[in-house]
Amino acid sequence: MNALDDVIESFSRLPGIGKKSAARIAHYLLKSDRSISERLARDVSVLHDRIRMCDICGSYTEDAVCEICRDSGRDRHTLCIVEQPQDVQTIEAVREYRGLFHVLGGVIAPLEGVGPDQLRLSSLVSRIQEEQIQEVILATNPTVEGDTTALYIQKILRNVSVTVTRLASGLPVGGDLEYADRLTLARSFRGRSGF
Amino acid sequence: MNALDDVIESFSRLPGIGKKSAARIAHYLLKSDRSISERLARDVSVLHDRIRMCDICGSYTEDAVCEICRDSGRDRHTLCIVEQPQDVQTIEAVREYRGLFHVLGGVIAPLEGVGPDQLRLSSLVSRIQEEQIQEVILATNPTVEGDTTALYIQKILRNVSVTVTRLASGLPVGGDLEYADRLTLARSFRGRSGF
Repeated sequence: MNALDDVIESFSRLPGIGKKSAARIAHYLLKSDRSISERLARDVSVLHDRIRMCDICGSYTEDAVCEICRDSGRDRHTLCIVEQPQDVQTIEAVREYRGLFHVLGGVIAPLEGVGPDQLRLSSLVSRIQEEQIQEVILATNPTVEGDTTALYIQKILRNVSVTVTRLASGLPVGGDLEYADRLTLARSFRGRSGF
Repeated sequence: MNALDDVIESFSRLPGIGKKSAARIAHYLLKSDRSISERLARDVSVLHDRIRMCDICGSYTEDAVCEICRDSGRDRHTLCIVEQPQDVQTIEAVREYRGLFHVLGGVIAPLEGVGPDQLRLSSLVSRIQEEQIQEVILATNPTVEGDTTALYIQKILRNVSVTVTRLASGLPVGGDLEYADRLTLARSFRGRSGF
């Protein structure tokens, strides 16, 4: 049963997949037409060869410069700063934002040995000036590390003539006051807005 | 971004993986060392070539006959009948049962067009007689289809000199009467035992 165990082992190493889910997937593949396994194997094997970081924004792309950075139809004076490449896709899926992106590739986390130097920050100031960015939206996560990183970037940009904003933090839509944690509720008060 | 979308698409077709989990896995693979993707791709691609059905019991194996069927140290007079190959692994993980297995490859489900002829039943009676099986344990799921199939097999075996038993159905260990459904609670009464 080694080939089966190998597949189960490989899947259970992926995030969010436990031993039982991995076994379920492996048996599903065995019961299904082999084309499904073949396609999965092919897609996964070419992933690293075909995907690279965009030279400009740092998100994933198959080319030197990604589609968003190349798109002249977008608002090229607004720059949204995110932690990870997947954040770009998350925000794109909402179809609310039409500006450009800048991916940091992480957050400042001293305990994990990640300082500002490990992030894609060096190109940020020159990019803002050269591309005549008017507003920078800090969209790092509302966590300790994300807040710290946002604060740090805000400080770097103090002497650059650009408006710096931060995504609103507060009660999730459809949420219930009763189930909101203290910090979120506190923030929703601080960030309250008029009608 | 096609190569990335392809991987997300491929993963989201697997059972228990939604679009968001698939995206998370794809980004995890991209951030991780490429050896992880390569191993996963290789393991999945050889799966169908290396795994086949055991000629005797019908569970998965890399050889003509599986390890359990070949193991002379097992109780060769008890036969546990299960629906799917993965049920063999689930039961083996418990280390309670030491007999042999017979995999049906499904259950009788008229609505889905599965009748007794589609199951591995034809070899069952001859196997029981030739291998001098003394007890057949019906371990199909406690569902309508599983119960129907168990009943059907019990009927076929009526004229064969073999003891036929069915796995106990009742309250799960650690469960709470309050959360038990009616059918389970009713079965736990019918199947009650003395101390």
